[in-house]
Order: sequence, then C-alpha cells, then structure tokens
Amino acid sequence: MSKRLAIGVDLGGTNLRVALVTKDGEIIRKVKEPVSGGVIDLTIRLTKGFVNEEIAGIGLGVAGLIDRENSKVFISPNLPAVEGVSLVNSIKEKFRVPVFIENDANAAAFGEKWIGIGKEFSNFVLFTLGTGIGGGIIHDKKLLKVAAEIGHITIHADGKKCHCGNSGCLESYASARALLSNVISALESGRESILKGLDGDILAREMLKDAGKNLGIGIANIINVMSPEAIVLAGGLTGAWDIYIQEAIREASKRSFKELFNKVKIIPSLLGDDAGVIGSAGIVFENMINRRISE
Amino acid sequence: MSKRLAIGVDLGGTNLRVALVTKDGEIIRKVKEPVSGGVIDLTIRLTKGFVNEEIAGIGLGVAGLIDRENSKVFISPNLPAVEGVSLVNSIKEKFRVPVFIENDANAAAFGEKWIGIGKEFSNFVLFTLGTGIGGGIIHDKKLLKVAAEIGHITIHADGKKCHCGNSGCLESYASARALLSNVISALESGRESILKGLDGDILAREMLKDAGKNLGIGIANIINVMSPEAIVLAGGLTGAWDIYIQEAIREASKRSFKELFNKVKIIPSLLGDDAGVIGSAGIVFENMINRRISE
Repeated sequence: MSKRLAIGVDLGGTNLRVALVTKDGEIIRKVKEPVSGGVIDLTIRLTKGFVNEEIAGIGLGVAGLIDRENSKVFISPNLPAVEGVSLVNSIKEKFRVPVFIENDANAAAFGEKWIGIGKEFSNFVLFTLGTGIGGGIIHDKKLLKVAAEIGHITIHADGKKCHCGNSGCLESYASARALLSNVISALESGRESILKGLDGDILAREMLKDAGKNLGIGIANIINVMSPEAIVLAGGLTGAWDIYIQEAIREASKRSFKELFNKVKIIPSLLGDDAGVIGSAGIVFENMINRRISE
Repeated sequence: MSKRLAIGVDLGGTNLRVALVTKDGEIIRKVKEPVSGGVIDLTIRLTKGFVNEEIAGIGLGVAGLIDRENSKVFISPNLPAVEGVSLVNSIKEKFRVPVFIENDANAAAFGEKWIGIGKEFSNFVLFTLGTGIGGGIIHDKKLLKVAAEIGHITIHADGKKCHCGNSGCLESYASARALLSNVISALESGRESILKGLDGDILAREMLKDAGKNLGIGIANIINVMSPEAIVLAGGLTGAWDIYIQEAIREASKRSFKELFNKVKIIPSLLGDDAGVIGSAGIVFENMINRRISE
C-alpha cells in the first residue's frame, strides 16, 4: 500500500523549512530555523522528528542550479552552503527513505500547481521574489524540468555585475539584495538628505518603483517567450504589491505583446511561504507514482 | 487509410515557400516566390498545383504571433500582410482539406526535431536568424505550443525602439534588419572614411561582431531559462558563422551558467531553408494522428 505522508524541505533562502505533508497537500506539522553552518546537519536535525513508517520519502527544494543526473547542486549564488555537498545521499543514508531534489522555485511552482493558485491554470510561470529571483515553469499542467533561472536573464546588457558572474541580470536590479544595495549606494552618495530631512518613504518608494520596473522587464520577457496564462508571484517582496508589483505590471504591459499581456493574469501565490515545502513533498508523491508505473 | 502526403507552406519572410512532403519528411516538389501583395491569393496560387486526393492537409508556418484558438495571426511585425487575414479559413474553403497554422520558427523547430538535427535531442531551442529573430522550443521531444518570441526579449532595458513597440529587444540588435540599420547609421555618421578609404570589411566585421555579441546575450538568456541540450541556429545570418555566430558563442559562454553552457551544443540547422515547409507539413501529420486518437 502506498504511504500517505511525505516530508518537504525548503532550503531556499535564509530559513530552512521542513513540513510533514499529506497526500492531499495538507501540512500536518512544520518547523523552520535560520540556515547557518552545515546544511546537512541542520536538515537532518529538523527532519528527524518527522520520519516514521508512514513516510513515502523526502523532497528537497534547494536554491540553485540542480544537477539532476547526479542529484546535486551545481551552483547556488544565494546559498553557497549547498554547493558540492552530498545532500541527497547523506539524507538517504541517514533515514533510509527515497530522497528527491529539485530547485526551490521549481518546487514552489509544483506546489502552487498541486494545491495552490496554479490549480486553475495549465500554463503558468512562478517567480520567487526574495533575496534572489527564481522561477518555475508549469506547462501543460506539468513542471518543466529546466533550470528556469529567470533571475539570471540579462536585461541590461551593459549593466551591473551580478554575483553569478554575468552582468545586467534581472536579479541584480529587482531582488531584495538589489534593493538593499541600491539603498546603501544612495545613502553613501549623499542621498541621506532625502532620507533624513524629508521623508524616508520617498527614497524607499523610488527604489521599489525602480526595482519593480526592472521586474516588469523580466516578466515581459517571460510573457513573450512562454505566453503563459498566469504569472504567479511569490516571496517576501510581494508584500510591496502596491508599489513594486504594480510598477512591474505597468512595465510588463508596455513591453510584452499586447495580445499576450491581455490574456495573462499576474497574481500572488496562494501558498506563500509554504509553497516550497508543499511542492517538495508533492514531488515525492509524484516520483513514487512514476516509479510504480515504470515497475 | 491515412494519406501519405501533406503540403507545407512557409510564410516566414521575404519568400513564400510551398512543398509537397511525404510522411517520412521527404520533399517531393517545392516552389518559392517573393511575398508581395495579397498573401492569401499567392498562397492559393502556389499551393493549387500540389493538391490532390493523397493530401492529408496543409500546414502553414507563418511569421508572427499566432492566435491558436482562432487559427489566426495576432500580429506579425516582420510580415504585416498576414495580420488579421483569414488565411486558414480561405485556404480550407478553397481546397476542402484540413489546414493548420503555426508560427514559422515553431514549425522549423518541429521540422528539425522530425527529420533534422534535432532528432538526436529531447530538448532544444531553435533560433531563426534573418530579417527578424524567431524561436521554437522543443521540450521532451515535443514542440511547446508557446509564443517563443525570443527576438522580443529585452536585453538592453534602455535600448533602441523595436518595431514591435518595445525597446531594447534582441531583434533590434542582432537581426539582419538591425545590421542593415547599423551600417546605414555608421555611414551617415561619417564612417564612410573607413568603408571607402580603408577596407569595407572592417566595418562589416565590426557590425557583425556586435550583432553576434548581442545574439550571444539572447542565447545565454535561453540557456539559463530552458537549460537545453542544444541551440539550433537557422536562417540567412548563419552564413556568417565564423564572425557572427562565433562571437555569439563567446558571449553566451560568458553570460550563462558554466554548468549549463558546457553541456549545450550550439549548432547549425540541418534542413536550412526547408525546415519551415517540412515542419509545417509534419504538423499536419501530427494533427491527423491526434485526431484519430481522440475520435
């Protein structure tokens, strides 16, 4: 008989999240802790309490470029701690259950498709807007097993150096890290007069609008290539919907083909911070079904 | 019994191409003529001689954004003659056979997958490099039914106005039209000294390298998002492989994740100018098979 629970792990950013998830995508229990030091030890420690005989497997959603053939992380500009580490094998050996790995944003897209806002769409692209910018593509109701490194599309050919090695990446202009670095630069270059004297909101607003405008370029690029039914936006920066996202929508409307823009819905994710753990657990169930079919 | 021939029509650029194609993708006969005036009349005139009782249907590969629901062309920046015209219905009424429409670059990608260089890959992206720049995406051995308007990815956020309405599009920097406009600008701004006095090759070379560099940005963007096994390059500009394409490869290597770049092959198309007609005919056969399955 197939097992009815899976553990979803989200190693997507500053926090490690672990959840015990049912076959229906319901979270039974969850924990989170800031990522620090050895990610393997941390993952094992947080996962341990959830492992029992009802567990079908563990799904890991990890920030970075996934080496699917070898179940490893090639490179993770925003979470170098996971690079070159045998995460899957170590966890498999520890708990003796099947372990799967996927990019964190891909896992979140899978989660939104499974039981989130994506249920109603066959084709959508999810953007994770946090420290970095990630993406996941659902096409024909399935997660495309591609890199989907949307944050590393060049939008300013002669632009700023990105920590991925490229320059002019979307992530360098529209992520939380980009915002922070812009604010610091502005302060350093004497914009404190505005910040202190007048109103800090003006600087913050201006920065958010600029980041949003750049996000809109990235969204337009994805609309023109993937012509999705929806763009689903997740991550902390969606909290600034009225400024940052509204500006992105405005810019995307100017830059994408109007016939494509008119049919695309630009909407927030439904699962929020839980999308990653739910999606990672969902990937376990999906893989187990595929295994049974192929056996 | 299923019919063994299809007509492929390529309305992708300056020439209209029509070919009679077998179930194995072999061209039995083909014609081409420059596009001028009424495209429906021209298509009917060139197609007429090929229609017989062995024809399963007609496939149209048309430059522009395809409205799949209504079998029309939404917009075609490089071939405005096909916009808002009832191409499919007119041809269907005339010949009383099934007629299918697809974007020209998508059709070419389908052709390359079917009997071209794409046979050996499960995942590749085809770029058509001509007057404009188009794209087609093969994922998991299937043509993704998406816009794939790769030419209209913004790579210079504050860049030149593109005839699609956006600014900074790849197509405005790396297409044949972009090259021509750059050469004209250079001549007008006094660069004739170089062209006449020294060596015209220097200007041409410089322009081609610059266009190639921009193409490389577009290729890197696609590599980072779709992580394909191959990038297949088609169209007239591939003739300048040693300068334009080599420069593109160099730039793409700098801008894409090295783990993805190392596994991608950047190669010329095998079918050349025939990819569009072969692919359009192939789409007819595929649709007929799907119809039989669903009946």
